[in-house]
Amino acid sequence: MKRKATINDVAKAAGVSKGLVSFALNDRPGVSAENRDRIRDIAQALDYRPSVSARSLSTRTSYALGLVIARDPEILGADPFFPSFIAGVERVFLHEGRALVLSVVGDEQHEATVYRTLAADARVDGVFLTDLRHDDPRIPLLHELGMPAVTLGRPEGGAGSEPRPFPVVTLDDTPGIVAVTQHLIDLGHRRIAHVIGPHRMLHASRRNAAFAQTLAAAGLPADLVVETDFTAEQGASATGRLLDLADRPTAIVYGNDPMAIAGIGLAHERGLRLPDDLSITGFDDSELARYVYPALTSVRTDPLRWGEAAARVLLQLVAEGSAADVDLEPARVVTRASTGPAPRA
Amino acid sequence: MKRKATINDVAKAAGVSKGLVSFALNDRPGVSAENRDRIRDIAQALDYRPSVSARSLSTRTSYALGLVIARDPEILGADPFFPSFIAGVERVFLHEGRALVLSVVGDEQHEATVYRTLAADARVDGVFLTDLRHDDPRIPLLHELGMPAVTLGRPEGGAGSEPRPFPVVTLDDTPGIVAVTQHLIDLGHRRIAHVIGPHRMLHASRRNAAFAQTLAAAGLPADLVVETDFTAEQGASATGRLLDLADRPTAIVYGNDPMAIAGIGLAHERGLRLPDDLSITGFDDSELARYVYPALTSVRTDPLRWGEAAARVLLQLVAEGSAADVDLEPARVVTRASTGPAPRA
Repeated sequence: MKRKATINDVAKAAGVSKGLVSFALNDRPGVSAENRDRIRDIAQALDYRPSVSARSLSTRTSYALGLVIARDPEILGADPFFPSFIAGVERVFLHEGRALVLSVVGDEQHEATVYRTLAADARVDGVFLTDLRHDDPRIPLLHELGMPAVTLGRPEGGAGSEPRPFPVVTLDDTPGIVAVTQHLIDLGHRRIAHVIGPHRMLHASRRNAAFAQTLAAAGLPADLVVETDFTAEQGASATGRLLDLADRPTAIVYGNDPMAIAGIGLAHERGLRLPDDLSITGFDDSELARYVYPALTSVRTDPLRWGEAAARVLLQLVAEGSAADVDLEPARVVTRASTGPAPRA
Repeated sequence: MKRKATINDVAKAAGVSKGLVSFALNDRPGVSAENRDRIRDIAQALDYRPSVSARSLSTRTSYALGLVIARDPEILGADPFFPSFIAGVERVFLHEGRALVLSVVGDEQHEATVYRTLAADARVDGVFLTDLRHDDPRIPLLHELGMPAVTLGRPEGGAGSEPRPFPVVTLDDTPGIVAVTQHLIDLGHRRIAHVIGPHRMLHASRRNAAFAQTLAAAGLPADLVVETDFTAEQGASATGRLLDLADRPTAIVYGNDPMAIAGIGLAHERGLRLPDDLSITGFDDSELARYVYPALTSVRTDPLRWGEAAARVLLQLVAEGSAADVDLEPARVVTRASTGPAPRA
């Protein structure tokens, strides 16, 4: 019997990389029509079945999709973003009879092993890629494994450059961080601090760039930036350091709600009146935001809806071999009682 | 020393396949009563201990363990108990190279289907059983499926009655709820309310019984009990109803921290001073508890440690066919600034 053609055979015959073959066969943008047609013809001539559909054509589908999180497992309990995102995924899976394989790997060292294990034996049919990083090593890895994926947010490179290997579900948080910063500027604040997540995460550095640009446009410096690990504990200690400054901020923008709620707690502890003495804003607009006192001005990113959309795109990708990008309604500011006019100097 | 009998020995002695032995010992349908009894007699004669899962003897292990939660998916983002529990499980799995298959099924209708799907094709090697209910239908179901499981907390029936099918990992929350109620009684409170989770959950009704007994022992009525779905929203609305009473409580005990934090918010909103006018306590002692203002008195149940212990027991059960029960250090009260002496009448 003739050996079954592999993606290598197609790449060799076409004189292109395996990656380009995969892009062409999955109809991803960024491959010229000419190249795409040529590669498809060669694949057809060799009777090669692209891996994604080969997987779905095989009798074994795993019924599961994977999410690998490279953070300390404790973040799950400390920050509602992932639980809410997972809740959205589960809402869709519930109706589709799918389950989520969740692996929290602590740091980035173990994640390659985990992805390889998930790919072996088709333990999952596809994965969600969150917390995109600079030069993210997971993208070539998943590509090599032939593992369908959906990315939350756009990887680096962007439009016009090399083709993106996976569909993207975007919820642009830039308008949200711009709006909340502008909201504070409009209230007369001139010393505005930013308590952010880890720099290596694209969303943290992207948000901080938008924060700095908004301040710069108003002629203000972005010199009060504290990096944290997203926990309430580090949110509280960052707040303490900022409030200890001789020239302390009159407003603090936090990278998530738990840190902002801890900031409110510490400010009250020190006898500050909110928002009279200090304005505070959160991020993600978790359920608790509206129930704390003062109710927390936050940026609504709706991780639940994000999870739903990502689940639908990933299921479509697995079933049909391709899926279009989805742009969700961008993040927006939800103004509540924790922000008010800047105190007079 | 005598070699321990294996399933092979039983199969050989009975002149049947290993599969049939497994079916007979796990009481699976499709084995005649005569055959089943004969195989059981032989197994007994050889002192063979049916491993809970004959599955673990087969070459195929799934590498995954399952957690099926019969709640609205949104609870994941609203209450840190499950995320923290999952974090503990993931901590152990990380080092054991296992993954968690998570399925949030919304309500109890779909859960049987999900368990059957997980059991088919050995998609998971075992499951965690949480939120035990009265006459819990999952216990006979998992038994029928031959699916190893560990239960969080003791199912009904208790010691002395029929043998429990699964190992139990207990973290007794009774001492915690007794201690926090007594703490409030000792502070002079006489009108103490309880905002609890759904009655159908064993832990909610068990805790409320302990609450009522502690009040009764002090000659106080337990007439202020409000049932909720554990969300901050219902915590806030329950607080509103209690504070509207002519004879309003001077202290409120909440079934989780998010509801208690929402209670603090609402009390502040209404201009009450905490703890001077009202004392508030939470449950689970989530990370945020110590960072809100006033810092929240709570009951430490340590769901992360619970998850770690349950993961270890389940892995042992799957690997060795049996595992001993584990009793974790009981829940205890952590006193912080949200509780103080009752206001004078």
